[in-house]
Amino acid sequence: MEHYILTLRCRDQPGIVRSLAEGIVQAKGNITESAQFSDPPTGLFCMRVSFESPEQGLDAIAGLVSGATSRFRPVLTLRRESSRRRVLVMVSRFDHCLRDLLYRWDVGELPADLRLVVSNHETCRPLAERYGLPYRHIPVTAATKPEAERRLLELVAEHRIDVVVLARYMQVLSDDLCRRMQGRVINIHHSFLPGFKGARPYHQAYERGVKLIGATAHFVTPDLDEGPIIEQDVARVGHAHSPEQLVAIGRDVERLVLARAVRLYAEDRVLLAGARTVVFG
Amino acid sequence: MEHYILTLRCRDQPGIVRSLAEGIVQAKGNITESAQFSDPPTGLFCMRVSFESPEQGLDAIAGLVSGATSRFRPVLTLRRESSRRRVLVMVSRFDHCLRDLLYRWDVGELPADLRLVVSNHETCRPLAERYGLPYRHIPVTAATKPEAERRLLELVAEHRIDVVVLARYMQVLSDDLCRRMQGRVINIHHSFLPGFKGARPYHQAYERGVKLIGATAHFVTPDLDEGPIIEQDVARVGHAHSPEQLVAIGRDVERLVLARAVRLYAEDRVLLAGARTVVFG
Amino acid sequence: MEHYILTLRCRDQPGIVRSLAEGIVQAKGNITESAQFSDPPTGLFCMRVSFESPEQGLDAIAGLVSGATSRFRPVLTLRRESSRRRVLVMVSRFDHCLRDLLYRWDVGELPADLRLVVSNHETCRPLAERYGLPYRHIPVTAATKPEAERRLLELVAEHRIDVVVLARYMQVLSDDLCRRMQGRVINIHHSFLPGFKGARPYHQAYERGVKLIGATAHFVTPDLDEGPIIEQDVARVGHAHSPEQLVAIGRDVERLVLARAVRLYAEDRVLLAGARTVVFG
Amino acid sequence: MEHYILTLRCRDQPGIVRSLAEGIVQAKGNITESAQFSDPPTGLFCMRVSFESPEQGLDAIAGLVSGATSRFRPVLTLRRESSRRRVLVMVSRFDHCLRDLLYRWDVGELPADLRLVVSNHETCRPLAERYGLPYRHIPVTAATKPEAERRLLELVAEHRIDVVVLARYMQVLSDDLCRRMQGRVINIHHSFLPGFKGARPYHQAYERGVKLIGATAHFVTPDLDEGPIIEQDVARVGHAHSPEQLVAIGRDVERLVLARAVRLYAEDRVLLAGARTVVFG
Repeated sequence: MEHYILTLRCRDQPGIVRSLAEGIVQAKGNITESAQFSDPPTGLFCMRVSFESPEQGLDAIAGLVSGATSRFRPVLTLRRESSRRRVLVMVSRFDHCLRDLLYRWDVGELPADLRLVVSNHETCRPLAERYGLPYRHIPVTAATKPEAERRLLELVAEHRIDVVVLARYMQVLSDDLCRRMQGRVINIHHSFLPGFKGARPYHQAYERGVKLIGATAHFVTPDLDEGPIIEQDVARVGHAHSPEQLVAIGRDVERLVLARAVRLYAEDRVLLAGARTVVFG
Repeated sequence: MEHYILTLRCRDQPGIVRSLAEGIVQAKGNITESAQFSDPPTGLFCMRVSFESPEQGLDAIAGLVSGATSRFRPVLTLRRESSRRRVLVMVSRFDHCLRDLLYRWDVGELPADLRLVVSNHETCRPLAERYGLPYRHIPVTAATKPEAERRLLELVAEHRIDVVVLARYMQVLSDDLCRRMQGRVINIHHSFLPGFKGARPYHQAYERGVKLIGATAHFVTPDLDEGPIIEQDVARVGHAHSPEQLVAIGRDVERLVLARAVRLYAEDRVLLAGARTVVFG
Repeated sequence: MEHYILTLRCRDQPGIVRSLAEGIVQAKGNITESAQFSDPPTGLFCMRVSFESPEQGLDAIAGLVSGATSRFRPVLTLRRESSRRRVLVMVSRFDHCLRDLLYRWDVGELPADLRLVVSNHETCRPLAERYGLPYRHIPVTAATKPEAERRLLELVAEHRIDVVVLARYMQVLSDDLCRRMQGRVINIHHSFLPGFKGARPYHQAYERGVKLIGATAHFVTPDLDEGPIIEQDVARVGHAHSPEQLVAIGRDVERLVLARAVRLYAEDRVLLAGARTVVFG
Repeated sequence: MEHYILTLRCRDQPGIVRSLAEGIVQAKGNITESAQFSDPPTGLFCMRVSFESPEQGLDAIAGLVSGATSRFRPVLTLRRESSRRRVLVMVSRFDHCLRDLLYRWDVGELPADLRLVVSNHETCRPLAERYGLPYRHIPVTAATKPEAERRLLELVAEHRIDVVVLARYMQVLSDDLCRRMQGRVINIHHSFLPGFKGARPYHQAYERGVKLIGATAHFVTPDLDEGPIIEQDVARVGHAHSPEQLVAIGRDVERLVLARAVRLYAEDRVLLAGARTVVFG
């Protein structure tokens, strides 16, 4: 028995689930997990199904499912569960998120295929290489940014990357890159969005005197820190914490939130619905 | 369009989802929410489906679904979403859980049908009656317990009660009653089970010096505080909290946990699988 | 032995704690709880001390403490613990926060002295009167607002109110009133500030697709939703929650956060330090 | 100005704070943080004070403080804040807690002095040595346990270790060692004590069907998993999590809880009061 993961998005209308179930029946599939959602603001229907099937051919199964659901014109994805999502991690100098992802991947907690690390600094090279990952240093200045992004896109193509994870990568991506990679770049922002967008959020949080600080994993869009949110969490703080202590406390929140978001993405549990995400957790 | 909620439990085997989907198709149903789980320890397959259908007859739909799945010999439940679960609440002197349930019910947060309140004291009568609920005072002593439980079962039958909620009811139910009402009596225990079973759990927690206290909503079984857990939560405490302060902090945890458990039950989201629950939250 | 609560604020400098301790020694006081904080941004030193003393006279003790610390020109407060803070609660139509405060006060959880309820509606009158509290209906329109605020200030004076609690009071107070009552008006805002200021925060949260919603208790200042934060908390939500469900989930967060903030204030644990609060929890 | 940390424990009685303040005044000290607690069950008074003083001599200050408080016969500790607590970490094969402690220490989050790592396996040697820490392999069998513990005590003496941290060390310490090192050995147990003592707590949690799993950092005593609790936390789980997934989720809870406990200890914030701890967080 092979295990498959399927996602479907289309305009909501009657009969979608029935047709999809019929396609899976034709593929001799047995559904092991199923989740669906009709999103009122967008009118989108989103679904994720795991199933097992004795059929060997991915294309054959895809054909049956597509045929059964074609009248709904869905956006479909289908993959073997064993064909893991391919991940490129970008990092600058702070290494706590990268370190956390590498550890989880190494112990088998993260069902993804980490392929390489790209950075505008050399700082994290030993860390990446200790885990056997290639490390590409691509410095970025205002002048070289277009060229740097070209190289990044080449690496994405060359390594057939599914998702780019910005694990505290401190450069802003160009609007053009954001649009080309829409829904395929995950960032960790070190605040509880929409509060404290932009630079130095922990210092902003300190000045505002909040009693909880947070972190937000979101898809990157041309509007900085405005992309669809995948996951968030918070930690309790108080008046006695200095900005530096907020930074330290925040590291734990950031790495937990980013790791959860990457795992959700790696399991095809995150679907885009307009400015929001549907997360089948 | 009428909305229906269906649950199914049977021995796990291939083809169940497919057959059930076929039955719903025959009933012209469109699935709006679906969740399923195969429980390894028991080998049970559990499923909950919400669907809408233009069919008027509950019996007709039930017939189609039963027919399509009969070879799996499932335990099926099917009801109109508008036919709410009927609830009997039992309480002793502490009124915070009862008060909370009544409030949520009154503002429309709790999709259940509260029918009456039974108590071994008169304390909470004004509260229940303010919400227009009948209040039955059934005193309990060692001698009168069998008679008291007989009257309770009469009320359950008379009011066609689906679930009895022990909202800080301080009497232990007899083994016989627990067995007869298996899976239909929810208790709130004022500790994070399996810690601090039995009497005075906040005082036990104080003596042990725990840094979090909790509450547990569980089905009642003949083994005291050992029944399948439905929901739990905790609150942070410290060395400076007296047992009385733990009691006060615990009240908030208890009422939140019990309210969540009752809502989950009222939406048919809680299925029994051996000593554990499957909760389709 | 009488119990006293003292707070002190002044410019930070060496020797304050020592002098204060000396004053308490002279008053034959024994310190039972002590907390202090030097706030870097403002240069303020804040302190809260509980002590017991056999001295009968509040004025005598105040004189000794003032004398011992006079060279620091502190802002001092001193009261018997048994002289509780006097509270006026304002409410509009939503009653969950008022109901929660009344309940906690009634069971003895809230060490404050609730004196009266003021509302721009008649909705909550039966609730307040059930707890034996006077209820004043002061309707507010654009035209009558100055007169309404005059009546409010009269009630504050007449009842010697320490703090006004806006328990989902939906009118904006005038800048002038905010300034006159600085540090004495607590509001509950139904979002995790600084996110989602202003109207309909749960609908804003829904549209932004956040994964946690929150509530914030803060002092009221002329800048709407910008006052010093006293307490915050959050609850987890998901894509499937409608705005109405966020409102329902939010009710629990609001009432817990507001109750904590009022309790902290009632125990003199909240000191203002510029735009932030120092909370000796 | 030098910074000092002082703790004091003695039988509760009037005048202790006053006398201690007097001693600090004599040492020209200025108190920067102060916390105290009278523990009802034991009758113990516990206090922790941070202060700065221009005095150079630790012994001189200790003499003044001892003199001022001698009639209370307190257990006093006094150290320069810069003389950090010396830590020996013990580990078996699972490295997540050790890794976490090393990282926090390396980035300056953990104000302690990690001195060496001791293990009954060779597994974690590369990790420890990457951080420049000596690693001692002390295998343990039933026969060699007394000898192994002798070597451990030698290392404790030789390196002037303040606290031994069992970072998932899977051997049970002898009663004798527990008694000799009372209050100086911190263990992380992978359950929310007092639930699920002993072996395989995640499997126990799975079988019981709890909805939250937890971890507990506690002092080690001859009664296994019964020592005074320092810190606890939990994470939400559900019916669909396998025991292996509970283990993975638990790793995050364990490392956070242990790191907090070690930091609290390293800052002299944990005082023993009978079977409980007083934690000045």
